[in-house]
Order: sequence, then structure tokens, then C-alpha cells
Amino acid sequence: MLGKRGTMVDIIRIEARWIVPVIPRETVLENHALVVRGAEILDLLPSVAAQKKYLTSQLLRLPDHLLIPGLINGHGHAAMSLLRGYAEDTSLMTWLTEHIWPAEASLVSHEFVYSGARLAAAEMISGGTTCAADSYFFPGSTAKAFQEAGLRSQITVPVIHFSNNWARTEQNHIDQSLAFIDECKNKELITAGFAPHSPYSVSDVGFSKILSHSEEKDTPIHLHLHESAKEIQDHVKAHGCRPLSRIQTLGLLSSQLQVVHMTQLTQGEMELVANEDVQIAHCPQSNMKLASGICPVMQLQAKGMNVCLGTDSAASNNDLDMVQEMRTAAMLAKVSENDP
Amino acid sequence: MLGKRGTMVDIIRIEARWIVPVIPRETVLENHALVVRGAEILDLLPSVAAQKKYLTSQLLRLPDHLLIPGLINGHGHAAMSLLRGYAEDTSLMTWLTEHIWPAEASLVSHEFVYSGARLAAAEMISGGTTCAADSYFFPGSTAKAFQEAGLRSQITVPVIHFSNNWARTEQNHIDQSLAFIDECKNKELITAGFAPHSPYSVSDVGFSKILSHSEEKDTPIHLHLHESAKEIQDHVKAHGCRPLSRIQTLGLLSSQLQVVHMTQLTQGEMELVANEDVQIAHCPQSNMKLASGICPVMQLQAKGMNVCLGTDSAASNNDLDMVQEMRTAAMLAKVSENDP
Repeated sequence: MLGKRGTMVDIIRIEARWIVPVIPRETVLENHALVVRGAEILDLLPSVAAQKKYLTSQLLRLPDHLLIPGLINGHGHAAMSLLRGYAEDTSLMTWLTEHIWPAEASLVSHEFVYSGARLAAAEMISGGTTCAADSYFFPGSTAKAFQEAGLRSQITVPVIHFSNNWARTEQNHIDQSLAFIDECKNKELITAGFAPHSPYSVSDVGFSKILSHSEEKDTPIHLHLHESAKEIQDHVKAHGCRPLSRIQTLGLLSSQLQVVHMTQLTQGEMELVANEDVQIAHCPQSNMKLASGICPVMQLQAKGMNVCLGTDSAASNNDLDMVQEMRTAAMLAKVSENDP
Repeated sequence: MLGKRGTMVDIIRIEARWIVPVIPRETVLENHALVVRGAEILDLLPSVAAQKKYLTSQLLRLPDHLLIPGLINGHGHAAMSLLRGYAEDTSLMTWLTEHIWPAEASLVSHEFVYSGARLAAAEMISGGTTCAADSYFFPGSTAKAFQEAGLRSQITVPVIHFSNNWARTEQNHIDQSLAFIDECKNKELITAGFAPHSPYSVSDVGFSKILSHSEEKDTPIHLHLHESAKEIQDHVKAHGCRPLSRIQTLGLLSSQLQVVHMTQLTQGEMELVANEDVQIAHCPQSNMKLASGICPVMQLQAKGMNVCLGTDSAASNNDLDMVQEMRTAAMLAKVSENDP
């Protein structure tokens, strides 16, 4: 087929009733066409103009559809799709320590992670998600599953101070993280980084090493933080301060830090994370299911913070549906802030 | 086809992987069959036994399915499906007085209600809902649409002290309600009753007349109550008491009273409605969308109250999906009561 310049090319023209582009923001184009060659968007223009300008090898007509950019799932643990519906009706700490961690100790393997991540990728893609942030053991298996599915991802490697099927010590986790990050250097669809699990499962030394490696390798740090009130209470008992305060003291606050959940925040803590340009991943359905609390998204956004949305794993959600997550996020923010 | 007794009958056998019966509660039957003749369930028994016992004219195999009783939508305004997505991001009183009521004044007619109710019935049935409580002007049009769709319903007739397209005065609303209730006497799928709209839109005289007619005709009374904090504040200003207190004084509290929303309740008010055996319809998504508040469902259930679930209209939801409503109700109760 002859393309724009008279050469033989594989150009796909997608004519949709409505298209929402990434740029400009908050725009809905009507009766436009997206012109695609391979992985590249060639053009976005009125359908009539596209029909004249491009000879195309494939035409996809979407006469009643809205075509939107791929959705980004800001926080998840794909392989845990195999634990969907497991340990319902428990709070975060009970869920983790009495159910999830023991189950993982007996189940998690290369095969488990590869299969679970394939399942999660299928669910995410079928729901319009084209990019996912993920943290789980055997990250190479998740990477393989996501790459095969064509899913773009940020895969951050868990660091945790106790032994599990993938690594024995905190140092062992860090070493394996470094190896994975190096492996991913040339993988086009993957951004790799560190995922120190949480303030209650990583030591000061572990956090410091992760920070230093992260600065050297210019990678993100992805951290569950202030997920539940009990986490805060336990941390105050153990460390004499709230978790965010310790993370600040250890020097981790920066735009490379992605903090997940943040359901328990004082006004001062909101100012602090906003001033340090920390990134936030909000997982409303997981926070509701585990009765963890509600992230004050409207207040954080009013301070100019970047808040993205994530499903968390299917074990605490119980699905990976970003459209439903958006709906829940909108409605939960309205009712919790008493502002429609 | 020959049935059990050797006569020609139309018997349908539905073989499902799992069946959840109405009775006994909390039971899941595996590899069972439901045997149906016309509108009657003849039997529920193991599939193998059903194959021997019944000759059937039609067999429906559901090898991967869960068959459940029809869902009941406890509160809605079906015709408002035609106002889906109208007036987003406003609070209840702004939404009603500045958007919905003016829109209804220019749009609502027999045809509007019939079309909207047909659309709503299609959405509800496709989502597993087989019975719906509804309150809207031109109730005969809703009744016609629901009956044609085969949907079982409770249709309560709105009473409101100001003029609209269907009735002029409060008394006019009551007269039309009485006529509709009489009309429905012999309609198998419809229970009719009164729906005084709310404490802020019905007079004391109106409530008293409705109570008296309801007792005489043995019909339910369906009432929006304590939907938002502003409703309570305005009522205290206008009447010197909270709405529930006025409803109590007027003598309406009984098991015939169905109160919808109840997001603003003191401990004493919870005791009161529980002692009077009042019925509650909980509409979590509508309450979230309008930032009205959260009904304390777990506390009400702990007092033994009957709490049913409703979508409210598609204008404040924005759908009529009872499965999603169940999910939201569960998650909202967990996070709001801090109890997974």
C-alpha cells in the first residue's frame, strides 16, 4: 500500500467518533482519525483530511466510540492476581502477616509470578491499561510476562528485611535488585527501580543503601507509606516517630520517591511531601477493602502534588479495573471531603 | 414433551455449576438444577436427579456459572435514566433546586417517563435486577414500562407541595396517588404506595393525609430522609427540630415506613428507627456522588434493622448496576467504620 510519500508502508488509520488526546489536555476531538505506523503515532487529524492525506493498509472504524490514551496503573503487584479473593475481611497488618506472607512463602516461585503477571497483564490490557507500575518478587518473571503482552511498565524490586522464596536477607534483596536494574537498562518498555516495602519491613541501613544506589543509577524508589493507622502507631512505638519523619531523616524525600497509600497525613506532612515534590500513588479500593483509611487526594492536589491512581493487587481490590478505580476515587473524594 | 406426571408441559431445566438459593440462606449448591414451569419454580435438586425426574422441553446448561436469585433495587427513579450525567459535581440541594427540578419542569411527560423507565428496566434486567422500588411522576407510565419488561416493582407515588408537570398541588398529588394505588390493586407484579418526597417538600398536613390513606389502604410509605447535613440544618431552622423528630411527631414511624439515605444519624435516632422497625434503603454511590454523607449501615444492622440497597437514579449514580452497588456498599462500610 502506498503511504504519504508514495512508499510501501503499513499505516493504520483509526477513525473514531471521539478522540481524547494526551495533548492538549481536557480536549475531545470529534470525527478525528489517529494514524499509526508500527509503534509510532504519525498524525491526529479530522477523519476527512486523513482519508485524503494517507493511503492506509488497515482501517479501523469506531463510529460510536471514544478513543482515549492508554491508562496507567500507578501501583500493583501483578502476580498476586493468583491470590484474588484470598483472606477477605481482614485489616492490613492481619492480612499481610497472618495470610498473605505465609501464603507467599508456600506458593511464590518463578512460575507463580510469571503466570500471575500474564493473567494480570491480560486483565489490565482488556480494561484499557497500557502501562503498569509493579513491585513483586521474581521481577524478571513479571518483566517477561509484561514484555510478551506488550505492556509498558515500571518494575521496582521489593526490598524487605526478612527471608522469602526470592531472597534471604535485606542485602540479598538489594543485590538482586541491582542485577535486575542492570538487566533492564536496554529494555524499551521497562523502567526499573527499587521498592523498599515499607518503614516496618526495611532497616535504616537498607533505606540508606537503596537511596545511594538509586541516586547512582537514577532510578525511582517506590514505597508503601502511611497505609494504615496501625502502621503509624507501631512505628511510633518502635522508632519514636511517625514513618514519614524517619523517611525524611534518612534523606529519601525527593521527586524520585513514589509513596503509595498515604491515608494518614497531618497538615504538616502534606506540606512536607508537597514541598519535596514527592509522587503519590492513590489506591482507593484497596484502602477501602482493608479499612486502612482515605488518602486526602483533593488536599494534596490543591498543593500541586502529582497524584496518580493504582489498583494495588487483585488480592486487595479485587480487580485491576482502572475505570472502576477512577469512579471510586472520584466518589470517595467527594464524600470524604464533603465537596461534590 | 412429557413432564413428571406424563402430561404435556413446558418445563425448563437450568443446570448450573453453582446455585445460591433464597432459602436456606448462605448456601451454595454445586451441580444443581432449577426446574421451572411458567412463572413457578417446581424444584431445586442435584442435576443428576433432575435429569431422571423431569422430562423437559428446554434445557439451559450453565457449566461455569453461578445462578443467584434476582437482585432487588431498593430505591430509584427509573425515568431519570434520561438525565444520566446531567449536573455533575453539585451537592444535593443545588443539584435538585438549580438543575434537576428545572430540567424536569421542561422535560417530564408521559412519554419521557415511559421511555426512561424502559431504558432503566433494560439496564436493570441486564444486570440481574428483577425487582425495583421506584418513585416518579407519571407512575402509570413507569408501571407500563416495567410490566412490559416483566420487572417486579414497588411503585410509590411522589407527593410534593409544589407544582410540576404531573400534578399542581400537594392535594392533587395525593388524589393522583390514590387513583394509581387503586389501579394497581390487581396488578400481580406491582405493589403501589406513597412517596412523600422529603421533609422539606411536604407539609405536615400532607404527611398526615398520606399516613391516614396508607393505613386505610395498607400501603408502604417511601421517604427520602436525612440525606444530607444541609437538609438537617435547613429543617432545624424552619421547624425547630431535626427531620426525623418531625416525622416521629407526625406518627409516621412504623414498619410500613421506608426511609432512604439516612446519612446523618445520632445514636438516639438509630435507636429510635430500630425500635420502630422502620425499613432503610441505603444508596452509597448516590450519597458519595452528591457528597451527602455515609449511612452507618453496620451500626444499623447491628441493631437488627432491615437495610436494603438501592442505586437511586442514574442521574446521581450514574448507573443502575446492583453488583457494583454491593461492592461499593461493602468497601464504603469497611473504610467508614474502620472495620474490615
